[in-house]
Amino acid sequence: MAYEVYWGSGSPYSWRVLLALTVKGVPFDSKLLQFSRGDHQTPEFLAMNPRGRVPVLKDADRVVYESVAILSYIEKLHPVPPLFGQTPGETAAVWQVVSEVDAYLGPLQEELVASVFRDQTGGREEVLRAVARQVREEIAAYDVRLGSHEYLTGPRLTAADIVLYPTLMLIGRIGTRASALSLGLGLDTLRADYAKIDRWARAIESLAGYEATYPPHWRS
Amino acid sequence: MAYEVYWGSGSPYSWRVLLALTVKGVPFDSKLLQFSRGDHQTPEFLAMNPRGRVPVLKDADRVVYESVAILSYIEKLHPVPPLFGQTPGETAAVWQVVSEVDAYLGPLQEELVASVFRDQTGGREEVLRAVARQVREEIAAYDVRLGSHEYLTGPRLTAADIVLYPTLMLIGRIGTRASALSLGLGLDTLRADYAKIDRWARAIESLAGYEATYPPHWRS
Repeated sequence: MAYEVYWGSGSPYSWRVLLALTVKGVPFDSKLLQFSRGDHQTPEFLAMNPRGRVPVLKDADRVVYESVAILSYIEKLHPVPPLFGQTPGETAAVWQVVSEVDAYLGPLQEELVASVFRDQTGGREEVLRAVARQVREEIAAYDVRLGSHEYLTGPRLTAADIVLYPTLMLIGRIGTRASALSLGLGLDTLRADYAKIDRWARAIESLAGYEATYPPHWRS
Repeated sequence: MAYEVYWGSGSPYSWRVLLALTVKGVPFDSKLLQFSRGDHQTPEFLAMNPRGRVPVLKDADRVVYESVAILSYIEKLHPVPPLFGQTPGETAAVWQVVSEVDAYLGPLQEELVASVFRDQTGGREEVLRAVARQVREEIAAYDVRLGSHEYLTGPRLTAADIVLYPTLMLIGRIGTRASALSLGLGLDTLRADYAKIDRWARAIESLAGYEATYPPHWRS
């Protein structure tokens, strides 16, 4: 029986799971939730994840939530291609980036979603400028780290790339909001400003199956 | 050559690494940093971790930072006893808790450190009461999940336990501060209030080698 993946359009955590399954060539049954109609707050969904969050993966009787846990589960069942490295050093390098994205970019992304995305920027201008500066510092550091590698930790795509990419995309999208532009946050030009990051993002966007993972409501 | 572990007394992220190495019986060279004298901001330390944070593990020429990356590295090199499960289901269950602790308790812990621990509670009373309520909800949920298991994900200690325990301890310690007590945060009685959590914490505290991992400055 195919996995059921419960996800939300534009949720960077969901996008990670779609990308991982796509890269590994694992078919799944797509369950796209509509937050606007409360799909994530139904008794059925809360029985799977009491936190009411996406993504959730259902494999017969087993339910896994938290994106990183889902990636680890998929890795065990479908180890090829490896997304968490093979040697201890590779594994450490991948987890280091995954942790850094969630620990440092994650809270910045959440602030941008809570204020810019929800049009609640009033009185938060200075905070948002500081957040944007920190985002740019983080992206600049990843740009440097890419060096001449195609992917973040070396020549092959790993979970490090799969975790950073959706966050970069969401932040870039938020950066095009009128309030972000009028504050001069500079989040709309991340890819133009960081050439290696742009090259890296294009590599991900050329992966077979990528198009089907793109947030559907971003197309309209 | 033994690993070098750079850590800070009372840093919950450091404590995770000390516990993991202890449980696996791996000797290491302890490098206890003093934040008060800026040990984490020296050029030598920033060359290892540009973020200036602990823990850092050095294995000959390899440097790993971010606690979860260090745990993953140790797991690959010293797989027995396994801390990240063996079956896909066990692995998913462990990573789910690790992610949840960092995603939900992590920001609450940081707010408590930034305000209560640093005596900056003025004007934040309502925020802190909300934070304390959320902490108690999280701990209550782990209490329920423990059920009749000795450890969070089953009969054996895993990274899930190693990640939650230091955070529980730090929050409990912050809860005994005068400002926390006067605000009635109820964080000083977590173990008294949640019997399964207390039983679980005692199991960890009875592990061979536990005493040597306890934050030295907490004893005074």
